[in-house]
Amino acid sequence: MSRSIDLAVIPGDGIGQEVVTQGLKVLNAVLPQDVKLETKEYDLGAQRWHRTGETLPDAELEALKGHDAILLGAIGDPSVPSGVLERGLLLKLRFAFDHFINLRPSKLFPNTATPLAGRPEIDFVVVREGTEGPYTGNGGSLRTGTEHEVATEVSVNTAYGVERVVRDAFARAAARPRKKLTLVHKNNVLVYAGHLWKNTFDKVAAEFPEVTTDYLHVDAATIFFVTQPERFDVIVTDNLFGDILTDLAAAVTGGIGLAASGNINPTGAFPSMFEPVHGTAPDIAGQGKADPTATILSVALLLRHLGYEAEAARIEEAVSADLAERDGQSARTTDEIGDALAVRVAS
Amino acid sequence: MSRSIDLAVIPGDGIGQEVVTQGLKVLNAVLPQDVKLETKEYDLGAQRWHRTGETLPDAELEALKGHDAILLGAIGDPSVPSGVLERGLLLKLRFAFDHFINLRPSKLFPNTATPLAGRPEIDFVVVREGTEGPYTGNGGSLRTGTEHEVATEVSVNTAYGVERVVRDAFARAAARPRKKLTLVHKNNVLVYAGHLWKNTFDKVAAEFPEVTTDYLHVDAATIFFVTQPERFDVIVTDNLFGDILTDLAAAVTGGIGLAASGNINPTGAFPSMFEPVHGTAPDIAGQGKADPTATILSVALLLRHLGYEAEAARIEEAVSADLAERDGQSARTTDEIGDALAVRVAS
Ligand SMILES: CC(C)[C@H](C(=O)O)[C@@H](O)C(=O)O
Ligand SMILES: CC(C)[C@H](C(=O)O)[C@@H](O)C(=O)O
Repeated sequence: MSRSIDLAVIPGDGIGQEVVTQGLKVLNAVLPQDVKLETKEYDLGAQRWHRTGETLPDAELEALKGHDAILLGAIGDPSVPSGVLERGLLLKLRFAFDHFINLRPSKLFPNTATPLAGRPEIDFVVVREGTEGPYTGNGGSLRTGTEHEVATEVSVNTAYGVERVVRDAFARAAARPRKKLTLVHKNNVLVYAGHLWKNTFDKVAAEFPEVTTDYLHVDAATIFFVTQPERFDVIVTDNLFGDILTDLAAAVTGGIGLAASGNINPTGAFPSMFEPVHGTAPDIAGQGKADPTATILSVALLLRHLGYEAEAARIEEAVSADLAERDGQSARTTDEIGDALAVRVAS
Repeated sequence: MSRSIDLAVIPGDGIGQEVVTQGLKVLNAVLPQDVKLETKEYDLGAQRWHRTGETLPDAELEALKGHDAILLGAIGDPSVPSGVLERGLLLKLRFAFDHFINLRPSKLFPNTATPLAGRPEIDFVVVREGTEGPYTGNGGSLRTGTEHEVATEVSVNTAYGVERVVRDAFARAAARPRKKLTLVHKNNVLVYAGHLWKNTFDKVAAEFPEVTTDYLHVDAATIFFVTQPERFDVIVTDNLFGDILTDLAAAVTGGIGLAASGNINPTGAFPSMFEPVHGTAPDIAGQGKADPTATILSVALLLRHLGYEAEAARIEEAVSADLAERDGQSARTTDEIGDALAVRVAS
């Protein structure tokens, strides 16, 4: 385990800066004295784009490569045309650093408000593919803007890409008490991609006889997310289905304010990137109203990825304990939540 | 209004036959004496495929064209490889008959069990595109079965196809009391298709100044489906997003046993097809346990499409009244539910 962490920080837009500040506060508080934390902030996002027209210049992409990991707040603003920052910055980072594991745990913490009646026990993790599928940007538009326009989007799926994420998901399932893995796809309609996913899943399953497996179409999966979320342990799915399912998962487990994610390259060839699932929430930006918990939980994923398992667990326990005590309390500011969690992890 | 209905019936597999029987029972009961109902059953589905290898022969496709409408139960069986019947029969019909409006109303009826706490008021309709998007079968697989396999799925979107469904959705929204239309897509990632959808939506919106409009990414939409479903009135979206969202909508409004759908060609060039959203449920087939309500509500959509508005409304009111009285009652058989609704619509 390295006793220093060289962290790139991309606060981004909207509430990004606020939540990242709290994430770093908790990170500083949880790290043992002898671990040297260095951070370097990168000014990327909507303001930079407005100022310079740049989303992610090559020099900065190069510089980012040198860090141990990246902490990202949120990217995007209504003033920027849709897709510019997503494709030019956020997805560019995921693709350039080959973040093929998009890890998104979902847990219903005590005392958090779920829209589901009966408060089912929810504790699953979605392993979303991060570098293929409909996210490749492989599409185009012909006769654009005319009544004869044809616009296409190509979902690209490779045996190489599917197998590595499926294998990772099996390993994660094998390491959990329930040892259950569900593949979610739509192989009755998207038959080419669907067969590749299903065949790969079945092949890798043979190497993990201890893991119970299951297959669901994505439409059926959404039903179970609200009627029987307790049935899920680990889910592996493609980039787009994973995007949709993890927002729904966040909603049923108390909201997007608690949903953490890691864009992970397990080979270590490039730095992995950790970010809350939520967006920039421009409507509440700068008001100290944003819940930094998702970012703080993303810091836990970051620590686990770098080998600091005890510290990661300490953050997760602190969040759990903090939420358990929130009941009936008045709303706290972004800063107060960060402070409370920093105190808990330090003690 | 035609005073005769020439109906094609495709019971299909699993519980298909059972629910269709009840649908026809209620249809017979609700129709005025002077309307002549003729039905012709088509033996299509898993059994036929096992027997003959056929999914939908040209002669039957031709014959189906001659009917005023089609009532379909459910198609599919675990014994048939995934995709064979979906692509070869169900989707073939939707595409051959140019069913570009896939209409899926969602309403939380009284006394039905919703997984949502607080029982929000839910009454919206999803207008799902039915002939384009990722459903075109436009994909392939290279080096299939090897470690170098590449599988693609192409989402095809045309100005022609998008505009007609968007226009239909605006007209539906304009005819409803709340007059609100939400476009759901993922235009920050699927930028080519997304821009076509968004630009078309904005263009048509100018013709419907009385309709309030809204845009949501599909991932965010799933959040609102469980946290604020009352915010939706009419939703227009692409084929795949519509598939996913309508299952989720069914789940939050009391289950897939109540979700009706119409595959509609509003031009009348081909017969429209009405079917419950649910599948064949082989685990309960033949046991009289299936809820035929979704099929019966699909019959209401069928009647409305053919101009029998009063009869359609009578079925919907009967279902609402029937559900309102179900509370605390013991479970009823498929037949009993059909009987109860037939009695109600007749009186
Ligand atoms: C902002 C967007 C590009 C992104 C995605 O679709 O992956 C977001 O929704 C997420 O889930 O991280
Ligand atoms: C069975 C399948 C092809 C179909 C679809 O994906 O459209 C079903 O899920 C539906 O929603 O009607």
